[in-house]
Amino acid sequence: MYFKLFPIGIVCSPFKTRQEVPRQGEEILPPVKIEIFSKYLTGLRKLAEGQSIYVLTWLHLADRKILEVHPKGDRRLALHGVFATRSPDRPNPIGLHLVTLEQILEDGIIVHPLEAIDGTPVLDIKPYLSREGIY
Amino acid sequence: MYFKLFPIGIVCSPFKTRQEVPRQGEEILPPVKIEIFSKYLTGLRKLAEGQSIYVLTWLHLADRKILEVHPKGDRRLALHGVFATRSPDRPNPIGLHLVTLEQILEDGIIVHPLEAIDGTPVLDIKPYLSREGIY
Repeated sequence: MYFKLFPIGIVCSPFKTRQEVPRQGEEILPPVKIEIFSKYLTGLRKLAEGQSIYVLTWLHLADRKILEVHPKGDRRLALHGVFATRSPDRPNPIGLHLVTLEQILEDGIIVHPLEAIDGTPVLDIKPYLSREGIY
Repeated sequence: MYFKLFPIGIVCSPFKTRQEVPRQGEEILPPVKIEIFSKYLTGLRKLAEGQSIYVLTWLHLADRKILEVHPKGDRRLALHGVFATRSPDRPNPIGLHLVTLEQILEDGIIVHPLEAIDGTPVLDIKPYLSREGIY
């Protein structure tokens, strides 16, 4: 049994490989554009510039067979199950990014900070709910 | 182009239909079990009871053709694009749930509060990072 995902858009970023993306370096990440495919643009209605949103991406370069990793690739740290980490390598490599919606364009949005390489497929956008901050 | 998702587990809940699930009623939601399929149990290693986690689900009853909804089904409210809402009806119906990991079992986990009906497929589990609370 499986489910089919269809990308709704794509990340346009200056970073072309996983190695180029700064880790936990959100201050130095540039704002990036997410192009939303025309058939899905209606779905953006009522989003507002300045609000916090989740962007869900498909981490297309991930290794889906991996179930344990050393956090941050540091072999001095004990092996963790992938569900205890944010490793892109995991059975269903869905990326979860909490970002600020900086600008709404005719064909997409500008967000910050988004750690994702150029060409990363985008699956979904959801508003952040303030009650999520209480955890 | 599409991507294939394979469920890693399944929600075991007393609620059998969408109508039965209380909306924004987390105080009255019972803790629910997520059964994790045996081949993925290794991925739970190093998760700790009491920590906050995201659970990603597949909202299998969603209507994927819908791009605009009245928030909370209230027709007095203006139409919103689905990406500006948490409606389950959306092109890629991935549910995002921030919950507390209450207990780790031999074949899964107990979490709270999880608004999802019995039999909902589970796609991924991720730790919540405290810096996400700053948004």
